[in-house]
Amino acid sequence: SNNFFLLAGPCAIEGEEMAMRIAEHVLKITDKLEIPFIFKGSFKKANRSRIDSFTGIGDEKALKILKKVSETFNVPTVTDIHTNEDAAMAAEYVDVLQIPAFLVRQTDLVVAAAKTGKVVNLKKGQFMSPSAMKHAVQKVKDSGNEKAWITDRGTMFGYQDMLVDFRGIPEMQQYAPTVLDITHSLQQPNQTSGVTGGRPDMIETIARAGIAVGVDGLFIETHFDPSNAKSDGANMLDLQYLEGLLSNLVAIRKTINQF
Amino acid sequence: SNNFFLLAGPCAIEGEEMAMRIAEHVLKITDKLEIPFIFKGSFKKANRSRIDSFTGIGDEKALKILKKVSETFNVPTVTDIHTNEDAAMAAEYVDVLQIPAFLVRQTDLVVAAAKTGKVVNLKKGQFMSPSAMKHAVQKVKDSGNEKAWITDRGTMFGYQDMLVDFRGIPEMQQYAPTVLDITHSLQQPNQTSGVTGGRPDMIETIARAGIAVGVDGLFIETHFDPSNAKSDGANMLDLQYLEGLLSNLVAIRKTINQF
Amino acid sequence: SNNFFLLAGPCAIEGEEMAMRIAEHVLKITDKLEIPFIFKGSFKKANRSRIDSFTGIGDEKALKILKKVSETFNVPTVTDIHTNEDAAMAAEYVDVLQIPAFLVRQTDLVVAAAKTGKVVNLKKGQFMSPSAMKHAVQKVKDSGNEKAWITDRGTMFGYQDMLVDFRGIPEMQQYAPTVLDITHSLQQPNQTSGVTGGRPDMIETIARAGIAVGVDGLFIETHFDPSNAKSDGANMLDLQYLEGLLSNLVAIRKTINQF
Amino acid sequence: SNNFFLLAGPCAIEGEEMAMRIAEHVLKITDKLEIPFIFKGSFKKANRSRIDSFTGIGDEKALKILKKVSETFNVPTVTDIHTNEDAAMAAEYVDVLQIPAFLVRQTDLVVAAAKTGKVVNLKKGQFMSPSAMKHAVQKVKDSGNEKAWITDRGTMFGYQDMLVDFRGIPEMQQYAPTVLDITHSLQQPNQTSGVTGGRPDMIETIARAGIAVGVDGLFIETHFDPSNAKSDGANMLDLQYLEGLLSNLVAIRKTINQF
Repeated sequence: SNNFFLLAGPCAIEGEEMAMRIAEHVLKITDKLEIPFIFKGSFKKANRSRIDSFTGIGDEKALKILKKVSETFNVPTVTDIHTNEDAAMAAEYVDVLQIPAFLVRQTDLVVAAAKTGKVVNLKKGQFMSPSAMKHAVQKVKDSGNEKAWITDRGTMFGYQDMLVDFRGIPEMQQYAPTVLDITHSLQQPNQTSGVTGGRPDMIETIARAGIAVGVDGLFIETHFDPSNAKSDGANMLDLQYLEGLLSNLVAIRKTINQF
Repeated sequence: SNNFFLLAGPCAIEGEEMAMRIAEHVLKITDKLEIPFIFKGSFKKANRSRIDSFTGIGDEKALKILKKVSETFNVPTVTDIHTNEDAAMAAEYVDVLQIPAFLVRQTDLVVAAAKTGKVVNLKKGQFMSPSAMKHAVQKVKDSGNEKAWITDRGTMFGYQDMLVDFRGIPEMQQYAPTVLDITHSLQQPNQTSGVTGGRPDMIETIARAGIAVGVDGLFIETHFDPSNAKSDGANMLDLQYLEGLLSNLVAIRKTINQF
Repeated sequence: SNNFFLLAGPCAIEGEEMAMRIAEHVLKITDKLEIPFIFKGSFKKANRSRIDSFTGIGDEKALKILKKVSETFNVPTVTDIHTNEDAAMAAEYVDVLQIPAFLVRQTDLVVAAAKTGKVVNLKKGQFMSPSAMKHAVQKVKDSGNEKAWITDRGTMFGYQDMLVDFRGIPEMQQYAPTVLDITHSLQQPNQTSGVTGGRPDMIETIARAGIAVGVDGLFIETHFDPSNAKSDGANMLDLQYLEGLLSNLVAIRKTINQF
Repeated sequence: SNNFFLLAGPCAIEGEEMAMRIAEHVLKITDKLEIPFIFKGSFKKANRSRIDSFTGIGDEKALKILKKVSETFNVPTVTDIHTNEDAAMAAEYVDVLQIPAFLVRQTDLVVAAAKTGKVVNLKKGQFMSPSAMKHAVQKVKDSGNEKAWITDRGTMFGYQDMLVDFRGIPEMQQYAPTVLDITHSLQQPNQTSGVTGGRPDMIETIARAGIAVGVDGLFIETHFDPSNAKSDGANMLDLQYLEGLLSNLVAIRKTINQF
């Protein structure tokens, strides 16, 4: 259908029921809009600002839920990994291994992910230029894996703000299919509270720009009740807005497909 | 037609022949695409990095050419002003007075422009946040003129690069109609040579994002032969690409008009 | 004495009494510490965020006060200018003409200042690299005036913060004597209120770093009662702290003079 | 002696002979200048831009060399760790475990380092504000270890440059003793070549500013022959300049100790 694809789901797998509900809800929308859907959920959160932040329900337990989502709804899944051991473990349950932005310069981790043969989704570091992602992609290829993706999640702009550099999309597409993360790229990091802020009111703005520019995929963290989510509540999209958003984006995509 | 409007023309008025040719060429395209067109040309360039840069052909002479373009083709015109005296002088020849980005914090200049009763197009300083433009618009209104526009031309990102913050478009639209300058926002300032660089290959990328986000207008510097232009050659769009670009943008606009 | 020199005084000349009191107070300190002193005061403020900000007590009146300070205490004076006409006018009253940071790219203004034969103090734009100041200095020299200074007042870092790039000091000293403005470089611009914030608690930190790096001069806005000053209260140093600050800085200067 | 302390040594342990030579040379200088010295060397390099960059001579082998340096010269040592397993392993050989800037948000790693009871030197992420380091320090303390240090290695400024925010030094000293890394904070990242550049000509400038501001320690990568070093050659200080540099810095420190 030449549509963009969608990586979507909650920030963290908080339990089976919420994961299944979110997956089912998103799938209904993406089926209707003919958007290839990959269910996203973190099995642990390892880079919280504060030691008392929520980090997960247990690795194995969360990964099994991802597997169940995949089998129940027949959708591929993606999760992020933080150590070399995570790579092999997660690869048994999911289809795409995601390297977090802070970790994308850790060669061992990228290589460990690449060696599983799974798709490796490399998040652009907030501190990296689009062109520097060439080297990250090359590490995947040098490990014998051609299936690298890049996901842009914004670039540091002052201490407490991020910007998306849309010039970077066509630049990174020279190296690999490129995804725009429309929730994290609106983060407001380094808040005094130790809890990252966000601008969910700007999600559609950023998303429209990304689709118009021709991104291959979108990454959205979404939840039935973001304000009660166990992590990243300030950034997730309330699920009730997902269909309206995606309908608009598909219309823009169809338009640019004709160029 | 609910289309976006277009401010376009050469960086500087280099002579009558080139101004007329460019205006005629752009008008043919905008007529076809139903884009309201405002012819743009600077009557002098006052903020060059180097003293030996081209600054103009003479103020009166250039302004008269702008007037002739306006009368010949029945299009409004816009030019930028640098002093309080410029405001009254230019107002006799053009329809829109533009405040350069470096000067948008100069209250006297903004007030002088506002008092002419002309539309005042306020360029967002590279050093200003979108929300800070509220105060610039307010200065126009406090001078008894309701016709203020804002034009975004990018924001400083490190010494030698600029980014467009697309979150700023809806934000500034709360204060005034907002235009995206798709040529200057791709500048690469502070080059060692003393001549500003550019990324004309990224014009369509930035323009598509702007239209998808819903800008009211676009600002494009364009020339039949950018590499031989007397100023800003690194940033202008070659006129041969204008129609293709605008056709795509109009298609995106029509799509988002339906949302 | 090979000491650094000091440009100091209130942001704006609010009246004769305050100007004389501040000058006298600073002079007592600088005499004791053998610091060459240049009295600073703006005769008008032209680039306020908001139209209702204080802009001055009248040009001629303020300039005459500067002259009186100069004659009474036998100190040179500096003021900032905003138009070509200001240059000639102010040159009759003061010894150093200062080009505001926002205006340092305006060639006509720099040339007008240079042609008076006075020292021209060029403030580095918040949007300029240290090396780009070479071109501003060159404009002064090309106008037949060898007496250019550069003053660093920080560089934009995100929308609401500034940083001083201390690597820029030796770089700019290749072009002209270089001054560090330790009050404005701590500004926090683009605040939602339309009034620029500051970090006066960091003045000594920034000043020590500047002196250790070898700046030629310091620029300090100071006032007996910053919180009641008519402009820039958030950035000025309370006069009661000036002697302690300068004593420390002179000690560092003496140390590095021995290297 | 109330002097600053020094973490110094080569970027990577390339072999025993070079490590011993560098340690001996530095120690001779620091003994003379009464600077507490901690020998620094990485036992592996895990975050290179390119997969073909030098990563080390073998973990165990490099750690044993660090131990030998410590025992031979009676100096403490510091090395950086990249995984939880590294923490326990390295703790058997060195006195200070350093968390790389890219990894300082990885809670598990910080906790693993803290639990060894060694000093934990937390490098400020290039993407973090000084105040955000409070949370990193808290993670060490919450793990029952009071011995945290912070090292500033600059902050991202555009894609290819870094700045040191000297306001951050007193801010971070509220949380822990604070070190300035005067070699990495001059990096020029994201170069097209995939090899990070540097500004070694600015080392003394940045170092003087840091000492004047009152840093507790300095971090310097140094080598007899930086241009032939196996990693980070563009940033290391040639050992021949170390004594001159440190002599100047000690003089500034003695001056500010009197304030």
